[in-house]
Order: sequence, then C-alpha cells, then structure tokens
Amino acid sequence: MNAMAPRRYDPRTFRQLTFHDAAANFRAGSDSPRAYLERCLETIAMREPVVRAFTCVNEAGARAAADAAAARWRAGQPLSAIDGMPVAIKDLLETRDMPTEMGCEAYRGNFPRRDNAAVWALRQAGAVILGKTVTAELGGAHPGPTTNPFDPGRTPGGSSSGSAAAVAAHMVPAAIGTQVGGSVIRPAAYCGNFALKPTQGGINRGERQTTSMSTSGVHAGCIEDMWQVAVEIARRAGGDPGKHGLMGPPTPPAAVRPERLIVLESEGWSALDAATRAGFETLLEGIGRAGVTLLRRGDHPWIEALEGALGNARAVCGGITGWENRWGHRNLVDQHPEGVSARFKAVLAKAEAMTPDDYRALLLEREVAQLRHAAIAPLADGIVMLSCPGPATPWSGDVPGQPLAPRPTGDFVFNAPSSLLFAPAVTVPLMAVGGLPVGVQIMGQQHEDARVTALARWLQGEVAPVVVG
Amino acid sequence: MNAMAPRRYDPRTFRQLTFHDAAANFRAGSDSPRAYLERCLETIAMREPVVRAFTCVNEAGARAAADAAAARWRAGQPLSAIDGMPVAIKDLLETRDMPTEMGCEAYRGNFPRRDNAAVWALRQAGAVILGKTVTAELGGAHPGPTTNPFDPGRTPGGSSSGSAAAVAAHMVPAAIGTQVGGSVIRPAAYCGNFALKPTQGGINRGERQTTSMSTSGVHAGCIEDMWQVAVEIARRAGGDPGKHGLMGPPTPPAAVRPERLIVLESEGWSALDAATRAGFETLLEGIGRAGVTLLRRGDHPWIEALEGALGNARAVCGGITGWENRWGHRNLVDQHPEGVSARFKAVLAKAEAMTPDDYRALLLEREVAQLRHAAIAPLADGIVMLSCPGPATPWSGDVPGQPLAPRPTGDFVFNAPSSLLFAPAVTVPLMAVGGLPVGVQIMGQQHEDARVTALARWLQGEVAPVVVG
Repeated sequence: MNAMAPRRYDPRTFRQLTFHDAAANFRAGSDSPRAYLERCLETIAMREPVVRAFTCVNEAGARAAADAAAARWRAGQPLSAIDGMPVAIKDLLETRDMPTEMGCEAYRGNFPRRDNAAVWALRQAGAVILGKTVTAELGGAHPGPTTNPFDPGRTPGGSSSGSAAAVAAHMVPAAIGTQVGGSVIRPAAYCGNFALKPTQGGINRGERQTTSMSTSGVHAGCIEDMWQVAVEIARRAGGDPGKHGLMGPPTPPAAVRPERLIVLESEGWSALDAATRAGFETLLEGIGRAGVTLLRRGDHPWIEALEGALGNARAVCGGITGWENRWGHRNLVDQHPEGVSARFKAVLAKAEAMTPDDYRALLLEREVAQLRHAAIAPLADGIVMLSCPGPATPWSGDVPGQPLAPRPTGDFVFNAPSSLLFAPAVTVPLMAVGGLPVGVQIMGQQHEDARVTALARWLQGEVAPVVVG
Repeated sequence: MNAMAPRRYDPRTFRQLTFHDAAANFRAGSDSPRAYLERCLETIAMREPVVRAFTCVNEAGARAAADAAAARWRAGQPLSAIDGMPVAIKDLLETRDMPTEMGCEAYRGNFPRRDNAAVWALRQAGAVILGKTVTAELGGAHPGPTTNPFDPGRTPGGSSSGSAAAVAAHMVPAAIGTQVGGSVIRPAAYCGNFALKPTQGGINRGERQTTSMSTSGVHAGCIEDMWQVAVEIARRAGGDPGKHGLMGPPTPPAAVRPERLIVLESEGWSALDAATRAGFETLLEGIGRAGVTLLRRGDHPWIEALEGALGNARAVCGGITGWENRWGHRNLVDQHPEGVSARFKAVLAKAEAMTPDDYRALLLEREVAQLRHAAIAPLADGIVMLSCPGPATPWSGDVPGQPLAPRPTGDFVFNAPSSLLFAPAVTVPLMAVGGLPVGVQIMGQQHEDARVTALARWLQGEVAPVVVG
C-alpha cells in the first residue's frame, strides 16, 4: 500500500483501537499492558513517518510503566480501569520526562521536568504516558507537520493535531487534547475519533490557566475509553481552580435515548457543502426514525434566540482569547522575535489593538449566549450538531513568500459554540463524506458531561452511520 | 536615633509619603520625578539595613524611567497621573528587568525577563518600577527578613511584607502586593498604610492564575494614590481572564458618607485583646456620632447568617488554596527537595491528603458565604471591621531545631472574609494600639471597589483616629 495514498474511511466498517476490552485478557494473562504497548509502538514505527503525530516518544519510560502495570494486573490489583493504558499528551501540557515545546520555535528544548495536573492524575491511575503529540503553535492556528491519517494531503485538524491523528492511526487508544476554540472536537471529527470536550473547568488544566475558555479533553477510539480516561483524571486532580470539576459515574454511563434534541445550525450552516449537509440531514432522519423529536430554529423562539446569540461565535472566541493571551505572547515575542510565526504576531497585533472595554463587550456577548443556552434546557435533552463543516481541509502548508494559507487546521465554526457556552460536547464518528470522517456532536448544559456521554452512546448504538459523496 | 528602637506610631500625626500632590510641582518645575526618586533612594539607603523591604532595587533603570517621566511632565504631556511615580513590586510578580525569586530558595536566581500584566500596565502609565519587595515564601506563611518599620522586633505582616514596609518607611509612595488569604490588607494594617484588595479578578494577575482566590492589590501612603495606581493598571490591562475587572472613575472617587454600616465581628472577635477591642469600639462610637447607623450581628438575622457562614473562614481559605497549589508545589518539591521550607512541605502534605470532594465541600462553603454576603446588600452601604487582630505580632524568626513559630506573618483572621467573599476591601490607618498601627477596613459587594474607596475616604476624613494602650 502506498503510504501517501488516501485510505477511504467508512464509519460502518472502520475499527478503532480500544483498551477497555483488553482488561479481561490482562487478567487472564493472554495479553498484557506491555504487549499492548508493543503493538502501539509497532504501529507508530509503521505510520509515524507519514502521520507525524508525535514530537517525542518515551519508549523506555513507557515500557517500564507498562511492565509495572502488567505486574499489577497479574496480581489482580490494577490501580484503575486504565492501568497500563498508553496515553499520548498534547505537547502544550508539561510532562516531567519529556520536553514541552508547544509547537513553537521559541520553546525548542523547553524541558521543565514538571507534570501537568492531568498527567499526574493519569500516572496515579497507572496510565502509560507514551509520548507528546504535535500541537499547532501554542495551541493557535499555525499548524505543525501532522497529516490526516486518512489522507496525508489533508489537515488532521488542530490545534490538538497529533493527539487526534495518533488515536485515529491506532498508535494509542487515547490522547489528551485541549480546546480554546475548536481544538479538541474539530480534529477528532476530522479523524473519526470519539472525543469529550468537558464543561469549562471540568479537567484540571494545571499550569495552563491563562485563558477563560480552554479545556483539557480526551480523544479515544471508543466512548468507554473516552469517559474512563476523563473520569480517572477528574477523580484524582479535579477541575480547574474554583470549579467543581467533572463529575459522573466511575464507569462509562449507559446509553440514554433522548426524547427531544435541538438541531443547532450555528454560524456554519449557510456555508456547508452540499454533500455534508445532505449527509447530516440523512443522519437526522435516522435520529427521527429512532423516535426522537427534533426541534430546529423555526420551532421555538428560544432556539432562534440561541442561534442569534451564536451568530458571531468565532469572532467572540477569537477576541476573548486573543486579549487573554496578550501579555504572555507580548513577552514571548519580545524575548524571541524570530521564535514565533508571522500568523502568531498578527493575532497578537489584533489583541494589542483592543481595550479593556472591547474585551468586556465580548464577555457580555459570551454571557448572553450562555443565558440563551440555559434558557433552552427545558425544551430538549440536548443539542445535536455537526462537529466540523465537512471533511478535513486539503492543505499542503504555507508557501514561503506567499500570503499565509487560511485556516490550515480547518474551520472551528461548529466548535466555537461549545467553547463559548462552556458546554460539554461529545463528538461521535457517524459520517463519511467523500471517504473522509465527519463527526456529529451532542452538546449539553454545563456540568452535564455524563448525560451528554450517555446520549452520545445512544446515538452511536442506535443510529445508522451515513456515507455520502 | 537607635535604628533598632521602636518608633511610636500615632495616626493623628504620622505623615505618609504621597505622590498625587507632587504633580503641580512637576509641572511648575520646582520638583521632578527624578528628584522624587532620589529622595526615595535616600530613604532606602537610610532605612533598608533594618527594614529589609527589598530583594532588588534597579537604580539605573529607575533613574532612566524617572528622567523620561520628568521630560514628559516638563513638556506638559505626562502619560497618566502616576507618570514618574516610583512603585515597588512584590517579588511574586514577574519583571523583565529584575529577578523573580518569590521568597523561595528554589527560585534563587530565577530571571524570566517577562513583565507581569500589571507591571506592563504600570510602565505604560509611566510609573517607575523601582524594585522588587520581599514576599513570604511563594506568597505563603514562611516569612522573609522584612521587619516592621515601626518596630524591628515585629512582623510587617505578610505575605506582601516588603511592599507594606516599603510604603510605611517612605521608601516608595505605592507598592503592589497580592492577597490569597490576607496578604494585602493584613500587612497594610500592621504598617499603617492604605491598601485596596480589589474584587476578585479586578486587576489582571498575568502569569499568576493558579488560585481561585488571589488578587493583586495596591499599598499606598494615601487613598488618592491607592486608587490612581489601581485604576491606571485596570484601564490598561483589565482584570483576570473571564472577569470584567476593576472599573470606576479615572480619578479618586470623592468621599461618600454611608447611611448604615454593618459591623462584622467575624471569626477573630472572641480572641481580640482588650486594648484593640476597646479602641475599635471607640472608633465605632465616632462613626455613630458622625450620623452613621451601625448594625451588628444581633440586629438582623441575615447579618447573623453571614457571621455564621464566615465562622470557619481561615480554614476554608487555607484548604481551597492548598488544593489549588498542590500540583505546582508537588512539582517544585520533587525538583528542589531542599529548596523549600519545612512549613511549605507541611502545607503541601495537608493538601495532598485532600480529595476532589473535600475541595468541592470547601467551594460550597465559599459559595454559601458569598450568598449570605449578597443577601445583606440592601441592609447597609457596606461593612466596617478591623483589618487585623491588634498590632503586629512580635517575632524573632524560627529557631533551628525547634518547632516552627506559629503564624509569623500575623493572623489573617480579619482578612479571610474579604478573600472568601471575593469582596473589595480598603484598609484605613485609623488606630494605634500600644504605639503600633492597627487598620480598619471597609468592605463592599463584589465590583463595588470605587464605592468602597469612597466610603473609606469619608471614614478617613470624618472620623477621629483612635489611640489606645
């Protein structure tokens, strides 16, 4: 097989790498965390030259951790349900045994030898911290080298590019990403993963507290592993300072059939390509056939009001985050004027043209959107919407001397809503458009992470995937 | 005069160093920011050997900044009302031209060459960043070498020890401190300063976002300078991420007479020494004579409910902050086991015995206290209470080989309430007990920073200071 040829994705037949179903074999001795890890390392050796998901793989450390986990399973005393699970960490988060370079030239060689709170919690649960994954520069829009595992000519999405690609390419069963605008759900949707972007503050961000709208989230090959990783972190490290953090059952919540779902069109609707739109409508028909009442913007003035409040969601997200990053980024550019991209400097310049009152106005827009969202709670069990505006964008990188390529990590138009609303979202790989993954997400009220997971699980089990184009 | 002898403090005669009244002379040419700075440097040279307020003084940088400010004043174009004002910065906050050692051996030589957002804003307003001031270790309870400017045998309070002492000793007209439990208001009260602890999130904390209950605040020799420094920062750098930040008039708010004030006894009341209690009651009588109705815990069930909700305020503060610092501090201890104090390790051990549910329980206590506080808003214009439980604690440092000295930076029992309630507080130097300063504070509802400042200004102008003991 030509490594550069696209692999046609079909959600009806594609099998993800999973971990939760390995436990029985670990106990029985027919498999072990070490053997599981070796299979991951083999996959990495095979696919990494094209996918380029990792900035660093700690093979020796991972083998030692996997051996320790194997001994615990053999003794019948695993530390948790994810004991021995190989997990990859987005290279924005600190890890004591690997550098943290944040996709940024200025941080080349940065090695603080500290563990992010979530990484600490994963280790406490026995997880094998296998490697650091490529992030767009400092979690922004300037991408790293990762390619989409289904087509090397397309973006995996960003900024959690490597985490998404590593899971989709069967390199690891789960990976940690972070989302400010769309950086967990978008790359998961482009790569055919399950992913949870928790309620704002749900998973302790540790040293990364600068922005009011970023969350750590989980990519996984199945919903069971996704939930288990999230809950094992939250049980140990809790949420962000001042927040109650993600709560829910200690094992994956069972599927729950919604009575009613709201279809959120959002800012991205009018620009959808025909195939994606048709595919999504087909999927909605399937949901309807399963007995769920679907409500749309014309059906209730409160839904219309929410759509209206989200009409500028991308710009509000971008403005808020730009302002919040302003001082850190100004210091960075002053110290390393050649160490950041031109795109990064352009974002900073825009933020530096803002006043505190500009920022306050954006906060008010966000607060109004959150009120509109709270208002719809009695109308339905949750929201269903696309996770991305079609298949991953083709992209071959910026061309030196030419204007920067627009949105090389894809458009976050379907992700800005959950970010702005601080709402939990789970994306489910339910569509293929032109042979590439397109995700569909369930979004709920703040703190409904477990409920959203339960609805997503129902969606995955009861609604037929759609293949178009 | 023997430098080690106590200087008897009397609030009726003590004259603080002020800046706002220098502007006319700067304009007229009879004074200049450079000459002002030189006077500060002379005072530092004279008093620093005993007071030990500074970790670093950047004389050359300050002189250059003062000269630039002098030129702007001469040209009639100052950048702001604080252009040329020498300001000292608590050594927890990053400064691009001085190290940031945080009172912690593990950070000895740490020099990140970045500006904290508030420091950046001060420079934009023309302020002269003169030096870094001693902080208790990482803003906690293990003190640095600073002594109380009125008695070298007593604590200046902490953790903003150096900022408080530098202002009280006429070394600078204003200084930046930070408060998690009591670290702005307590040292100001022990040193006879004015200080503003803003509404939580009022002043952008920049890189210091780890805890949910810390605020940057301002120490000054007068209420005008205090407000001006706070508002000049907030106008440029705003508040914390996600917060609207301190708002109010661009110049110090005029005095406003309250109709009614609530006297909050809080957890510290029963342990007050007789002189401080008598002095405070005398002060309250003066407030009553000025026509203000005073309400106390017996006067209304909502006041009683607030007192009840704050009955455990110190422990709630300590537990919340300990948990939030847990991962950062664990990493630090692992990297530098000999680089932190035994007291620091004891606080960490306590935090590491907590579960996420323990933390959530403390957050609920905080949330209930905030509801109780919001409930009393219609009853009065604000709260009046002691800023500290009597004069600064005598203290001669930990003795090697013996148990750690208890609370060497003083008790924060009268400060935990404003921290827990996210409430703005202004302390006014209105009492002397035994020849040492004792502050009295006005506290208001969240976002009432300007109103609290106006009430404090009235208190300062219209109520006679009290001298006892």
